[in-house]
Amino acid sequence: MSVYDRLRDLNIELGDVAVPAASYLPYIRSGKLLYLSGHLAKRGGLVWAGQLGDRVSIEEGTQAARAVAIDLISTLHHASGDLNKLEMIVKLTSMVNSTGDFDNQHLVTNGASDLLAEVFGDKGRHARSAFGVAQLPLGACVEIELIAQVA
Amino acid sequence: MSVYDRLRDLNIELGDVAVPAASYLPYIRSGKLLYLSGHLAKRGGLVWAGQLGDRVSIEEGTQAARAVAIDLISTLHHASGDLNKLEMIVKLTSMVNSTGDFDNQHLVTNGASDLLAEVFGDKGRHARSAFGVAQLPLGACVEIELIAQVA
Amino acid sequence: MSVYDRLRDLNIELGDVAVPAASYLPYIRSGKLLYLSGHLAKRGGLVWAGQLGDRVSIEEGTQAARAVAIDLISTLHHASGDLNKLEMIVKLTSMVNSTGDFDNQHLVTNGASDLLAEVFGDKGRHARSAFGVAQLPLGACVEIELIAQVA
Repeated sequence: MSVYDRLRDLNIELGDVAVPAASYLPYIRSGKLLYLSGHLAKRGGLVWAGQLGDRVSIEEGTQAARAVAIDLISTLHHASGDLNKLEMIVKLTSMVNSTGDFDNQHLVTNGASDLLAEVFGDKGRHARSAFGVAQLPLGACVEIELIAQVA
Repeated sequence: MSVYDRLRDLNIELGDVAVPAASYLPYIRSGKLLYLSGHLAKRGGLVWAGQLGDRVSIEEGTQAARAVAIDLISTLHHASGDLNKLEMIVKLTSMVNSTGDFDNQHLVTNGASDLLAEVFGDKGRHARSAFGVAQLPLGACVEIELIAQVA
Repeated sequence: MSVYDRLRDLNIELGDVAVPAASYLPYIRSGKLLYLSGHLAKRGGLVWAGQLGDRVSIEEGTQAARAVAIDLISTLHHASGDLNKLEMIVKLTSMVNSTGDFDNQHLVTNGASDLLAEVFGDKGRHARSAFGVAQLPLGACVEIELIAQVA
């Protein structure tokens, strides 16, 4: 089944490549690996701001991580030309904007990991790190970077 | 000298692959590289919780980082099939759960780096980053991820 | 134009490889990739300490990130033998020592990204993540690690 069929079934529409917040590229290819820059969570086109443990709930954080995953898939689509050529998602690094007592970064990050598995099947299962950061660019609640292998 | 002999000399017993805290794999292989997910510090099978600068001392943090390294070696053993096939530890990233005034993440992380050098000799020497995070999944005091090259 | 000519035009003098703060290597090569360890910001040979959002301004932080980039280029020079052999800067990860309300890590990190683009041209443009950490080794205000591809 084509990755694009799965996206249609999930009612996910891919967007443009996220515009970097500063002097860098949204992704770069080295050998078979695509390195995607940290993508900030967005809602309605604007940065999804807030801190977990403060005014962003686990449920909202999980939705924010899912939204980042959709943006990462959009970038992968533009970078690869065809998402079906993707051999695997290799690694996710998830930076969750956290107060000093919020320790559910893994649950929040599942919003991204679960979507990648839904969309790409076994090829979407990946290695991962998730941790709580003191703050993020533009106050985003979640930032996620990704490494993928393409044919 | 076999890596397994060195482990025996150090009285280190490898365990099972650490079970991920959420929707991801403990490791993935891409080309010659093994990407290991962030492993949380554990003690007696439970997450080793606490913050450096608060109730976890540098000495305890160093032991926690050493414990993570043992779990990483266990995962490397299962991923590679034979630790002697490991060509090198490439890179360590160490996230130390830190208060805003604890600035000895490098000393804590030596608990992992020193053990890798002891076990793997020159092949165990690696590039590294260590930094203080606001909080970690399940309140762990240290989380470390690793990239290794295999034959 | 040679990378060394550009460095001369910018009045940048390369130094020695930064001495790691602890038990690790300043860089390691795996295949065509050079993995550079996290380099701490320095000023006058000493760690450039302080936190963004507290006593380090955005302007100073940007200068600190630029100083880290010069040290990273020095390490790249020693690691590659010849900076002209560098095929591309692949990825930067920038850890900015931040208070809980400082959200301009992307502006600070531009100090490094902009210099890499100036020195290496298109080959210096890279994928990137930047985030705010609770604290850094020796109280450094910025730590940056880098992956580069060499011939």
